[in-house]
Amino acid sequence: MSTTSSKRPFTRRGFIKGASLGVGVPVVGGLLAACSTQSVTPAGGAAVAQPHSDTEPHATAAAAVASYEDMDRMHEEGVKAFVAGVETKGKGNQPLAFTLDGDVKVFELTASEVDWQVAPGIDVKAWAYNGTMPGPEIRITEGDKVRVVVKNELPESTAVHFHGVMLPNSMDGVPFVTQPPIKPGESFTYEFTARNPGSHMYHSHHNSTKQVGKGLLGAFIIEQKDRAKDPAYDLDFTLILNDQNGGFTFNGKGFPATEKFVAKLGQKVRFRYMNEGMMYHPMHLHGLPQLVFARDGWNLPQPYMADTINVGPGERWDVIVECTDPGVWAFHCHVLSHAEGEHGMFGMVTALIVQE
Amino acid sequence: MSTTSSKRPFTRRGFIKGASLGVGVPVVGGLLAACSTQSVTPAGGAAVAQPHSDTEPHATAAAAVASYEDMDRMHEEGVKAFVAGVETKGKGNQPLAFTLDGDVKVFELTASEVDWQVAPGIDVKAWAYNGTMPGPEIRITEGDKVRVVVKNELPESTAVHFHGVMLPNSMDGVPFVTQPPIKPGESFTYEFTARNPGSHMYHSHHNSTKQVGKGLLGAFIIEQKDRAKDPAYDLDFTLILNDQNGGFTFNGKGFPATEKFVAKLGQKVRFRYMNEGMMYHPMHLHGLPQLVFARDGWNLPQPYMADTINVGPGERWDVIVECTDPGVWAFHCHVLSHAEGEHGMFGMVTALIVQE
Amino acid sequence: MSTTSSKRPFTRRGFIKGASLGVGVPVVGGLLAACSTQSVTPAGGAAVAQPHSDTEPHATAAAAVASYEDMDRMHEEGVKAFVAGVETKGKGNQPLAFTLDGDVKVFELTASEVDWQVAPGIDVKAWAYNGTMPGPEIRITEGDKVRVVVKNELPESTAVHFHGVMLPNSMDGVPFVTQPPIKPGESFTYEFTARNPGSHMYHSHHNSTKQVGKGLLGAFIIEQKDRAKDPAYDLDFTLILNDQNGGFTFNGKGFPATEKFVAKLGQKVRFRYMNEGMMYHPMHLHGLPQLVFARDGWNLPQPYMADTINVGPGERWDVIVECTDPGVWAFHCHVLSHAEGEHGMFGMVTALIVQE
Repeated sequence: MSTTSSKRPFTRRGFIKGASLGVGVPVVGGLLAACSTQSVTPAGGAAVAQPHSDTEPHATAAAAVASYEDMDRMHEEGVKAFVAGVETKGKGNQPLAFTLDGDVKVFELTASEVDWQVAPGIDVKAWAYNGTMPGPEIRITEGDKVRVVVKNELPESTAVHFHGVMLPNSMDGVPFVTQPPIKPGESFTYEFTARNPGSHMYHSHHNSTKQVGKGLLGAFIIEQKDRAKDPAYDLDFTLILNDQNGGFTFNGKGFPATEKFVAKLGQKVRFRYMNEGMMYHPMHLHGLPQLVFARDGWNLPQPYMADTINVGPGERWDVIVECTDPGVWAFHCHVLSHAEGEHGMFGMVTALIVQE
Repeated sequence: MSTTSSKRPFTRRGFIKGASLGVGVPVVGGLLAACSTQSVTPAGGAAVAQPHSDTEPHATAAAAVASYEDMDRMHEEGVKAFVAGVETKGKGNQPLAFTLDGDVKVFELTASEVDWQVAPGIDVKAWAYNGTMPGPEIRITEGDKVRVVVKNELPESTAVHFHGVMLPNSMDGVPFVTQPPIKPGESFTYEFTARNPGSHMYHSHHNSTKQVGKGLLGAFIIEQKDRAKDPAYDLDFTLILNDQNGGFTFNGKGFPATEKFVAKLGQKVRFRYMNEGMMYHPMHLHGLPQLVFARDGWNLPQPYMADTINVGPGERWDVIVECTDPGVWAFHCHVLSHAEGEHGMFGMVTALIVQE
Repeated sequence: MSTTSSKRPFTRRGFIKGASLGVGVPVVGGLLAACSTQSVTPAGGAAVAQPHSDTEPHATAAAAVASYEDMDRMHEEGVKAFVAGVETKGKGNQPLAFTLDGDVKVFELTASEVDWQVAPGIDVKAWAYNGTMPGPEIRITEGDKVRVVVKNELPESTAVHFHGVMLPNSMDGVPFVTQPPIKPGESFTYEFTARNPGSHMYHSHHNSTKQVGKGLLGAFIIEQKDRAKDPAYDLDFTLILNDQNGGFTFNGKGFPATEKFVAKLGQKVRFRYMNEGMMYHPMHLHGLPQLVFARDGWNLPQPYMADTINVGPGERWDVIVECTDPGVWAFHCHVLSHAEGEHGMFGMVTALIVQE
């Protein structure tokens, strides 16, 4: 599969001129434009939403034709880039290695400011654990003794809360309530035994609107000691939803730089949705229904089927998708303005690719 | 029941003057004013919401008395108009007839721009299937072979996604992923066998924030082959929630032009909620609890009772209401700013009328 | 525990000057500033949210150090004030006494405008039942005959709807539909038999965006006749969530003036969440999971566990928390911008304190 197409700029101007602007131009610069020209549609607000009235006067047929062809090409470029694979700097939610101190698994997290690339052309300053947004995935097993050593290289104090995890109050990570804040240059050690299995999270609990907003967040997964307590599955993916730093992201990347999920026909895939943002995100997978079997890490007494899982801030939902039908199945937030603009898809869009 | 009242204008000015402004004036023009004077209350936002501080200085008692009487009259007019029945042009969500080609049920959809009346005085340009917003309701039975021929008379390319429906990937309606976009003047034929029964939807999946926003959406219902799998019910209503073109609507209309739901004492009513908007809408029915039995078209293993069903974008929820008590039961979105303003109820308000 | 700390101002200016500004200055004035400097992050909106970009230029290390120490101290002051206990005028959600008229329990509610203190320094004009926001808690038992006499001392007409309660249509509280509005100076009597137990609410149903927004709301709890139908619990707390008048509140107060919930190790605590606002609020309790057992007052056929309960407008959720671990467990809305700003925690924050 050629990646040539992903090297062509998406900007409307570029297309109108019919000129390639070359390598130095952001590949998906049009996505930024798409974002910035979206109007704001408040949820829970009182205004009558007419987001398109300003930007779309009723064009003449001739003008519209010129426009729709450009528009289609920009949409196509985004899809082609996604399918071919878009290179971005940095990858979040990667497994974090541990060392053993006796029977204690020791993880190290360093919080610092980094440059983070959400998609080509969308570069932000992030506050990150071990250099990535989201931070690395910490994965242990029920009953494990775990130690997390946090070093603060930020210009602000911080603290880490293990969201959803049962632990001694002194390890809960709330400054001035359960511990002093970790000042710049200092460290703090969290230590506890993993009691409740499930899909949990870790994130800053100090000045959290800003600090979590800037990227201090990650997945904290406690596997079942007895795997038979979970439904069977072949693949296991974590999907951290966010809507703050750099816009709408899955695991810190926006379409077309989002990770593709690839499975084989007949496989069962577990998705762990985690919302670390401020908005709700109804996650819609095309074609293949989702068996919802865990909520906030706790297995439901009675799983149920759905195709659009509304994940609220702080919530986690675990689902199983059975890959009964081959193809490229779109997979996106169904608040459409988080996923598609005039210049094509962006933000919270990916695909589950089921190969025969 | 006289409709005279619905011919009197609602505008504050009209009431203050005590003058009828005549037939040429929008019947519920006040609703527009009500909408436009609402302040925006973002959900998930950070601002301290004090929506009334600017518009409501602490009036003197005398001024307040003049005002509350006008206000009450405007509220009353809205209710009277609703009860009497408000004529508006166009009705969405009507059954779509099909032809048979062998054993295939053939439906035809044409997408074009139309004038759409949400309520008297609220007229918008909509992008519509077969001239209505929402489009016609497609209703088939599990196991049916179905063909949907889509003709595009819009100035933009488009495509149709059958949201929640299991089908071959090539029929999934995502331009450049599963098909080329349907260009202006062109057609595309979708064909598949209906596998998973339930309350589903169809809508544009190209430039979707705009295209669905402007009205390219409708209900796609696959009835159970074995009706005994659903709870028993006497009446079956679809309620498409929307918050985009023309404001807050049920089946494309805002109060007082919303459809009334009428049942007889003792009957069981099925409501199929479908959210085609961008915001969540907690649907509250007064007086009569709702048995929630299906989610996204999938029957729940264990139905449960509730009175306020929060329907997120892309979600569908099916409920049964048992009409145990007679009367006019208010039925509305419980984000109150989607339902009532200083000039009376508007938007997402209707009623379930239980007749003895 | 000394309350001295709560008498020191939180303002950044105060800290920078290192001067106590004295008693006349709002104790938590900094909270207001924290609120007002938050940027608006719409949910369901289309904008790429970068809430911090304007207010946080990349400071030099030296400037940052000065800033983080001030910031930490402001955060600490808030926590200390909360722990010590913050005096505010007025307490909502207090039990409402009744008189007996034969076997009818008679409650009296008077709606009027009052001054309401959300937190020190956050004083608003509220519309209140019996002088508090929320109004008093009405608590009866399934099968009780109840009469609620409502007197209107507001400058507007009003009416009371018993949200979630099954009752005769004439008692449903919708002006011009089930009753005339209660005009200023007038009264209306509601009377019905309590049929469906659970956590319900009462609030205005006239000009409701404004009237409920300004504070006309309260808890209406119908206890089970057979207590064995609910799970066992030792303590029973009502938590009314709101996001309108005075900002983000629990039972009408914002942090650090929010009520602390205190239990003993081993006790089971019932929380009744009720959302009377316009936004969703995912309620996250640290350390101790929540058994969700009732929805809108109706016990679920199958309770389930969660740690973040997303409560939508108009919804009620009942949970049981088993106090298995001692300590001060943070308890807050997980839309972080409803709970914490640069100057510390505010709004929807409290704690469950489990004492050994």
